[in-house]
Amino acid sequence: MTRKVYLAGPEVFLPNAREILDRKAALAREAGLLPLSPGDLEIPHTNSKRERAAAINAVDEKMMIQADAIIANLTPFRGIAADTGTAFELGFMCASGKPVFAYTNVARDHSGRVSDLYGGAVAYDAEGRLRDPDGIAVEDFGLADNLMLHAGIERRGGVLIIGDAARDALYTDLAAFKTCLAVAVEKLR
Amino acid sequence: MTRKVYLAGPEVFLPNAREILDRKAALAREAGLLPLSPGDLEIPHTNSKRERAAAINAVDEKMMIQADAIIANLTPFRGIAADTGTAFELGFMCASGKPVFAYTNVARDHSGRVSDLYGGAVAYDAEGRLRDPDGIAVEDFGLADNLMLHAGIERRGGVLIIGDAARDALYTDLAAFKTCLAVAVEKLR
Repeated sequence: MTRKVYLAGPEVFLPNAREILDRKAALAREAGLLPLSPGDLEIPHTNSKRERAAAINAVDEKMMIQADAIIANLTPFRGIAADTGTAFELGFMCASGKPVFAYTNVARDHSGRVSDLYGGAVAYDAEGRLRDPDGIAVEDFGLADNLMLHAGIERRGGVLIIGDAARDALYTDLAAFKTCLAVAVEKLR
Repeated sequence: MTRKVYLAGPEVFLPNAREILDRKAALAREAGLLPLSPGDLEIPHTNSKRERAAAINAVDEKMMIQADAIIANLTPFRGIAADTGTAFELGFMCASGKPVFAYTNVARDHSGRVSDLYGGAVAYDAEGRLRDPDGIAVEDFGLADNLMLHAGIERRGGVLIIGDAARDALYTDLAAFKTCLAVAVEKLR
């Protein structure tokens, strides 16, 4: 039976969201999977913004419940970390006991990105813990994002593919997605 | 039986993490709940950073599995959005079918914070969709964070309490947490 994979990521927000979601879906189909893409673009009319948000949440959760696995795009979004909606969805699928896969189009790891955010002003304290200028600890496990995401994926046998896209193609470069897709197909076999 | 509540949030990174976690735990106990706090500060020795990350992830997931509910601190962390680890944990608990509660110490909503990030340079397109200067859509549902988090909480009967802490007490002001705790106690009764 064809396995269903939920394609999580911030692509729904792109100016060309439909195009990118369709390209990812087509690649998933070519790989032999049935893609389920977040429903943000196909929600029926609602009477209020709040109802619309609830309707999108309901559609996306339903898709995740139907899906056999997730491929999450954890490329940093409007800051140094993954889109929080995608992080939520990754946690949702982990709790559901389903295979989880992810990728990012930014090679620099979490601690490197936090360092950049503060112009390099992060330093190790006496106990060997990396801290930002406010003394707030910086995870320096060499992971792509907060450990709950990256370690959560790896600890249950998934993978997080580290890509390195051009600055102007952060959300449209699909090289890391393709690699992740190939691994997912192999593991879901 | 005393209900167990997982206290998710970026407090584990604070210089005074232990103190704040203990204060939150004490308040939860006073309210009649059994608090479970993320295990970042109490992980046994591991041979590598990667193993340590996996160990923390394992401890935190185990606590969530033991917990009856979650109270998630969604105060923006190092940027305009919630800590991604906390977002992951909120999704994890939603998928587990457990009651979810949250709060934020920042009153300005998601679209307002995105607008601030771009110096106000967000605007509605011809279809009425709010977009940032790169044309990337901005959720403007009046929610505190990505809709998966806020609508995901409300759609299953939880609440997200909106606080308004002083700039220098964003992670230490517990007023919104206390309000959230009171609602949780009532709903978990």
